[in-house]
Amino acid sequence: MLMFGGITLSFIFIVLAMILGGGVGAFIDPQSFLIVIGGTIGATIAKFPPKDLIKGFKTAMLASKGRKDETNLSQLVDTTEELLKKTRREGLISIEGQTTGNDFFDKGLAFMLAAPDARSVERYLSDEIQNLINQAQRGKSVMDALADAAPAFGMIGTVIGLILMMGSLDDPEMIGPALAIALLTTLYGAILANAAFIPMAEKIAAWQSVTVHEQELIALCLLAIKNSQSPMIMRETVKPYLTHDFYKLPEVAE
Amino acid sequence: MLMFGGITLSFIFIVLAMILGGGVGAFIDPQSFLIVIGGTIGATIAKFPPKDLIKGFKTAMLASKGRKDETNLSQLVDTTEELLKKTRREGLISIEGQTTGNDFFDKGLAFMLAAPDARSVERYLSDEIQNLINQAQRGKSVMDALADAAPAFGMIGTVIGLILMMGSLDDPEMIGPALAIALLTTLYGAILANAAFIPMAEKIAAWQSVTVHEQELIALCLLAIKNSQSPMIMRETVKPYLTHDFYKLPEVAE
Amino acid sequence: MLMFGGITLSFIFIVLAMILGGGVGAFIDPQSFLIVIGGTIGATIAKFPPKDLIKGFKTAMLASKGRKDETNLSQLVDTTEELLKKTRREGLISIEGQTTGNDFFDKGLAFMLAAPDARSVERYLSDEIQNLINQAQRGKSVMDALADAAPAFGMIGTVIGLILMMGSLDDPEMIGPALAIALLTTLYGAILANAAFIPMAEKIAAWQSVTVHEQELIALCLLAIKNSQSPMIMRETVKPYLTHDFYKLPEVAE
Amino acid sequence: MLMFGGITLSFIFIVLAMILGGGVGAFIDPQSFLIVIGGTIGATIAKFPPKDLIKGFKTAMLASKGRKDETNLSQLVDTTEELLKKTRREGLISIEGQTTGNDFFDKGLAFMLAAPDARSVERYLSDEIQNLINQAQRGKSVMDALADAAPAFGMIGTVIGLILMMGSLDDPEMIGPALAIALLTTLYGAILANAAFIPMAEKIAAWQSVTVHEQELIALCLLAIKNSQSPMIMRETVKPYLTHDFYKLPEVAE
Amino acid sequence: MLMFGGITLSFIFIVLAMILGGGVGAFIDPQSFLIVIGGTIGATIAKFPPKDLIKGFKTAMLASKGRKDETNLSQLVDTTEELLKKTRREGLISIEGQTTGNDFFDKGLAFMLAAPDARSVERYLSDEIQNLINQAQRGKSVMDALADAAPAFGMIGTVIGLILMMGSLDDPEMIGPALAIALLTTLYGAILANAAFIPMAEKIAAWQSVTVHEQELIALCLLAIKNSQSPMIMRETVKPYLTHDFYKLPEVAE
Repeated sequence: MLMFGGITLSFIFIVLAMILGGGVGAFIDPQSFLIVIGGTIGATIAKFPPKDLIKGFKTAMLASKGRKDETNLSQLVDTTEELLKKTRREGLISIEGQTTGNDFFDKGLAFMLAAPDARSVERYLSDEIQNLINQAQRGKSVMDALADAAPAFGMIGTVIGLILMMGSLDDPEMIGPALAIALLTTLYGAILANAAFIPMAEKIAAWQSVTVHEQELIALCLLAIKNSQSPMIMRETVKPYLTHDFYKLPEVAE
Repeated sequence: MLMFGGITLSFIFIVLAMILGGGVGAFIDPQSFLIVIGGTIGATIAKFPPKDLIKGFKTAMLASKGRKDETNLSQLVDTTEELLKKTRREGLISIEGQTTGNDFFDKGLAFMLAAPDARSVERYLSDEIQNLINQAQRGKSVMDALADAAPAFGMIGTVIGLILMMGSLDDPEMIGPALAIALLTTLYGAILANAAFIPMAEKIAAWQSVTVHEQELIALCLLAIKNSQSPMIMRETVKPYLTHDFYKLPEVAE
Repeated sequence: MLMFGGITLSFIFIVLAMILGGGVGAFIDPQSFLIVIGGTIGATIAKFPPKDLIKGFKTAMLASKGRKDETNLSQLVDTTEELLKKTRREGLISIEGQTTGNDFFDKGLAFMLAAPDARSVERYLSDEIQNLINQAQRGKSVMDALADAAPAFGMIGTVIGLILMMGSLDDPEMIGPALAIALLTTLYGAILANAAFIPMAEKIAAWQSVTVHEQELIALCLLAIKNSQSPMIMRETVKPYLTHDFYKLPEVAE
Repeated sequence: MLMFGGITLSFIFIVLAMILGGGVGAFIDPQSFLIVIGGTIGATIAKFPPKDLIKGFKTAMLASKGRKDETNLSQLVDTTEELLKKTRREGLISIEGQTTGNDFFDKGLAFMLAAPDARSVERYLSDEIQNLINQAQRGKSVMDALADAAPAFGMIGTVIGLILMMGSLDDPEMIGPALAIALLTTLYGAILANAAFIPMAEKIAAWQSVTVHEQELIALCLLAIKNSQSPMIMRETVKPYLTHDFYKLPEVAE
Repeated sequence: MLMFGGITLSFIFIVLAMILGGGVGAFIDPQSFLIVIGGTIGATIAKFPPKDLIKGFKTAMLASKGRKDETNLSQLVDTTEELLKKTRREGLISIEGQTTGNDFFDKGLAFMLAAPDARSVERYLSDEIQNLINQAQRGKSVMDALADAAPAFGMIGTVIGLILMMGSLDDPEMIGPALAIALLTTLYGAILANAAFIPMAEKIAAWQSVTVHEQELIALCLLAIKNSQSPMIMRETVKPYLTHDFYKLPEVAE
């Protein structure tokens, strides 16, 4: 949400600049847009398979969603403690079907209950986390490639416009409007890169570090349950993940 | 295929921009093209031997080909399991002449059957993979060098054109067309870099990681056959290569 | 203080340039400023949560404050020696309530006296230092993102202005003023990046290394007290932090 | 040779562009060239001692020479095998005075025969290789510095030209020619960097890796002779240097 | 010396360009210079404390001085051998007060004679070398910051000049001179960065590696004396510092 909020904010100010300057109409030219976006996508699918392009956008969307369970890292640990107390009394079977509100935790819980031993749980969780890292890195690569290509094709469009304009200077009246149109591709390329692709790439990177941090904590919780660790030892183990919490930066003394 | 598809797409949009603007004719100037491409190639063969240049393009072509056996990493493992079952019953000789549809697998199979021991198979396969990495890295270096040189020589061509134009401003009518021609080298340099050399360099890098991933998996399969491993242990060994599969990214939850 | 002194100095010279050139009035255009700052903030909160943006500025402010205890690294060691002599005679309880003038030292002292063992003191201090590093790195990332976005949106604003101007060249008299206004966003973006965001990012990085250096020294002092080390061994331990002092660079021989 | 071939090729196309455009005359201005080359050299000898500058060019020349013994890595091993067979039968003394056509081999052979033990041979060869690496890295640094400075001083020259031109716009006829001359320094700087210094820097880097590869192989050969290794073991030892040969990249399947 | 020689050379060619073009007068504008240098210094002391700025220049000056003892690394070893022979016969006390012409050696010698054991000598020397590295790195950071800020403030000054000029195009006669003045800040920024700050930063880096190399050699010599090593072993120990001498690069075969 925040990502799209930010991108929308940037666009609002860009459109505001256009309106204050005289109207948005002068900035809408489907042909110019087609050329920039077409060239950019072409160059990007020359680098990555097309399905990666789609996956990149999906990852960006996923990264931009407000995470509902954003503030409850210590709640997760509390939940784990409760589950742990129950399973140490009544066995793993007693928590079957329970949910915690966190998708990764619930999915891991189900797997953990069915798994033959702690080792296979550990491998399953580390594979899941590794897959998330792969997905995020590939998504970021795609966004980086788009962010590189967009201004380049904007510039190519402008040079094409300039050459066309200069080749036919018969009517000096037309120089201004022709230049204006030539500059549109540069504008589109710059906006696409700076207000969309670069923020998306950065957002995916930020999302990756926060999500991996949370999933590593959850993995420790699930392994503690599988191993019937004492709650106190479990709390010790996950402590660094709570202290160095991405969301609880130390108060800035003023 | 996809690479050439992407490059072609980029070119289609560039040519579209030209046509929509008034015609492709104004953009065709063999002399300007000769200068950009000649200078670029000159600067590149000053850095690398000419045969490396040719090899770079061959590697880019190889990297851009749709890989027919793209989705069958787990099929490769299934095939290996079958071969393994057979050789454990009937000896290595029983699978002589069999093919799997994967070139690297078949070549390795033939070598493996003739090889005196597992150690020489291992070295042979690791040499093959290392050679592929060398080839890819050198190809990428050549493409990077071309991508750096093309815009530079485009700019040099434009400055030359500007100087010539400014030295003879007798006929103001000629300024426009002269500027148009001067800008053509910039355009050629930008197009060559952004729609051809940069995508080729990136494609080679992507191809390298996917191919090395697959070949490392095949190497494990072949060594398992040579060592008559139990199929179950073989599956355990290759598992990380299947889980972290480049082609099976996790579903993006929506 | 110094950071704001430096930033103020830069602004004084920029305003001076405006005044000497004919007056500041021509450079004040709230609309242009709104567009640059709005787009920049939008792109940045698309990358980071808004609270990180605020935290980034707070960290920059913290980093820019003149540190009152800047020169007393060896004083801190002297103080530690005194405290150590006292506690070795009279027990840890004897220094309860004492203050040293250094906030981190005092906070650590209070924790250390209450802590059950040296190990928990060590973990507490290392968490505090790690949190400071996290805070500084995140603050720097935010400032870097702002410094990247500001010139980009300045450029976008200028291209918008150019397009508007060129679309309506009816009155040649208006070209100059319109161009002047178009250039304002470029100016704002360049000033924001070079005279504010880049120095803030660098300042945070410099503050991090100096503060971490000091806090690591204090951590060694506090652990020495907790462990009732002999003053001599404590001095040996902290020596590298005094010798390689950030504030006592060797005299430059001339 | 190839480097100079490439540089010459680049220059041919640049001069071609000039001739096709109207003549080389407009591009020759000794003053402009003096300013660019003088400023570039000045800035470079402010960074490195002047003798390093000369050594940088000597290294570039050395790197650009066609290496006569380019294809005979396996010949070198064959030669080593022959020498080895002889020395194992008749003693080291029997190969005194023999030459192999490779300078580094011959120099090493002479040293090896005179050396008291294998250890001193090893150190001598590793020093020789390290010196070559030092020389190449320093040469590359000098070329990099030249490649950075040349466009900068070209730009400075052009700004100087623009300022002079604008200060005296009395005769509008003179604007064109004055601009043309102002642009010459930009052109010189761009050509020097892109058609000379950058290729030279890259060439030195490529030469370093190929030469070090070869010399490391030769070092292994000489040590094998000194230690009277069996030819078979010698062949095993040097194998990785032959397989991963820089000159024998795998065939690109088509 | 050489650094200032190089910088002076660059300035001579820049001034030459001005004179050949019509006179230096058009390039002197104290206001423009004040704006560039003031903004640059302001931005830099927003990043570093002002005393670091002064130290940065002192370090650059130190780095640029011709080192009198530049060629005598092997002389230093010879001297060490003499001292060693004397102390092994007559004791450490016999060389008290002796000087070698190298400041670092003499300072270390005095410390070594007074030091209780080899360990404290080792720590003292390693602290000295570490301090030199700290000083050089900080000096380089300051120069890098100046080199980044100068062109940025030159550009800001030019944009300010352009805006002022365009706002008042009443007198077309004045466009040229106004543009000329606007460009002066760009020129000043480019010259300051390319002919002063960048070379100074590079010079400090080069000075650091040469001086650290020499001081490490001297440290080995002093420790050999403290430990009364046999001269032969001392020579063995320092050999890598002589062979890989920065000043004795291998002859370039031609």
